[in-house]
Amino acid sequence: MTASQVHRIAPCSGCAIELEAGDELVVMDPMGQQVSDLTAFAREDLAEYLSSGRSIDYAAKLWLTSGDTLYSNRSRPMFTIVDDTCGRHDFTLTPCSKEMFEKLYGEAEGRPGCEGNLASALAPYGIGRDRIPVAFNIFMNVTFDPQSGAVAVLPPLSKAGDHIRLRAEMPLVVAMTACSAGQSNNFSYKPIDFRIERAAAG
Amino acid sequence: MTASQVHRIAPCSGCAIELEAGDELVVMDPMGQQVSDLTAFAREDLAEYLSSGRSIDYAAKLWLTSGDTLYSNRSRPMFTIVDDTCGRHDFTLTPCSKEMFEKLYGEAEGRPGCEGNLASALAPYGIGRDRIPVAFNIFMNVTFDPQSGAVAVLPPLSKAGDHIRLRAEMPLVVAMTACSAGQSNNFSYKPIDFRIERAAAG
Repeated sequence: MTASQVHRIAPCSGCAIELEAGDELVVMDPMGQQVSDLTAFAREDLAEYLSSGRSIDYAAKLWLTSGDTLYSNRSRPMFTIVDDTCGRHDFTLTPCSKEMFEKLYGEAEGRPGCEGNLASALAPYGIGRDRIPVAFNIFMNVTFDPQSGAVAVLPPLSKAGDHIRLRAEMPLVVAMTACSAGQSNNFSYKPIDFRIERAAAG
Repeated sequence: MTASQVHRIAPCSGCAIELEAGDELVVMDPMGQQVSDLTAFAREDLAEYLSSGRSIDYAAKLWLTSGDTLYSNRSRPMFTIVDDTCGRHDFTLTPCSKEMFEKLYGEAEGRPGCEGNLASALAPYGIGRDRIPVAFNIFMNVTFDPQSGAVAVLPPLSKAGDHIRLRAEMPLVVAMTACSAGQSNNFSYKPIDFRIERAAAG
């Protein structure tokens, strides 16, 4: 691994990066209680994408953490979670969006949200808003009532400095955000930091 | 509403139908304990599809039933659940697939599964396997441990004759199956029945 620079995703924004197989992406919550929605596409064929449903099915659990694999819709490993100091992430909800802000938050003109920010970051790859799937919502704390199935979005369990380390298992385009939804981050719209540790010296 | 014919989906197969806004689709479990994976696309623009993440977010619950709305990725209502005699369906797992049968069931050469059967049914619309999202898995009984997040696929709660009635809220292409996964249907690979009640006399 080579030394790596820390990049900051400004509050309520997103970015896209490229990874090679073996590269490690470390996503960090610099101040605590912030969420990063992450999605990924196979660079060899952008029709292959990170699949919540496949990943949950193969792990046989909703909440993935160290040692678990994130799968594509084609059932191929995209990431391995190598390390995770938080331990709670969501993989059931779509990224916040303009329409979601209008419906759930009563905003007259919704902000782009993570969906819009992911789509903007992925626009150079020709990936539009319709192709943003259920994301891997890092640090997002969603609970379920086992009797009623009621969903609650609670403040993240992440503390300042918590991180999750993901190893790319194939060449990937990855997009991620600093989340724009108040309920997800305890109304504390903060940045997200990340760094990339390249498998090959660059 | 006009009188309607009952159609049968043979075990381990799928089909596609078209609905107009206002049409009602009644999906029935004729023998009990069988699952039907259902997905849908907007006929006006097939890039708009039934979204688990949006539907769960807006309903604030995992398990949707009478009175709930199924939303598209564009946050528009696709279906309203008008009636539901079973009350338990899943909206978290991707349809069973060739690769899933190989990974989870140890089949040397996996069967097409619901994913392949949905894709075959949707092939005339140019919708391939990569575009089959997390489906609305009618009668599928998936539970979650609230502490660990562990997922269990249990025998369906549906009894012979149970049904769910879905009203189309826009013109739709709908694909559905009689599920091929043993764990989903208590290893009882059975058919699924449906009928369409047209809003306009045909």
